[in-house]
Amino acid sequence: MSRSEIAAVNRQFEEAARKGDLDRLASLYTPDAMALPPDGPLVKGRDAIKQMWGSLAQSMGLKDVRLDTLDLELAGDTGCEVGEATITHGGGTAVVKFVVVWKKTDGQWRLHRDIWNAKG
Amino acid sequence: MSRSEIAAVNRQFEEAARKGDLDRLASLYTPDAMALPPDGPLVKGRDAIKQMWGSLAQSMGLKDVRLDTLDLELAGDTGCEVGEATITHGGGTAVVKFVVVWKKTDGQWRLHRDIWNAKG
Repeated sequence: MSRSEIAAVNRQFEEAARKGDLDRLASLYTPDAMALPPDGPLVKGRDAIKQMWGSLAQSMGLKDVRLDTLDLELAGDTGCEVGEATITHGGGTAVVKFVVVWKKTDGQWRLHRDIWNAKG
Repeated sequence: MSRSEIAAVNRQFEEAARKGDLDRLASLYTPDAMALPPDGPLVKGRDAIKQMWGSLAQSMGLKDVRLDTLDLELAGDTGCEVGEATITHGGGTAVVKFVVVWKKTDGQWRLHRDIWNAKG
């Protein structure tokens, strides 16, 4: 069930990114989440992560994100996902690979650590 | 105790990197580890990770690595570390940020997922 729940959050992530709904995007992270975008400092907490996505979406002209899970290991209330994100933006399409550490808090799976880089 | 054990593995990692001991470096990963270097494909398994480190070390003229743990969360036999690596190479110094997912197998903590990107 955890796998389908995490997949459902990924679908919510895609929808929020597509709609540019930054509040919704940020709410999918834990309150003490950390995001590690390439070529920038560590980003801590929902507010900072919301700002980060706003800046990223604007600078790249973000249109669409598709998340593909390549591997997902669960251990209790934590999970580790390895995947690829296909990003459609103003200049075309980019594929990045990512690791997301998931955490279940208050009955809800959320992104707790989120780091990605170019597939090359 | 797990925290000091993981710290000890990081010191072994630094020493192996400094000495260019690729076998030792690879042995610090789980057999089914995945590494996600920037600008390249997903790397699976110790043999491939050993080759990756050999290529990276050679191409950048790797001299020294210092690992600084910024955050480490443990949950049973898994752990999630967020940190920075300061890399001394032929052209100077670079700082990257990383997420390492640790796994304890056969009584030994090992790197299970390893991804990094530029601090910018």
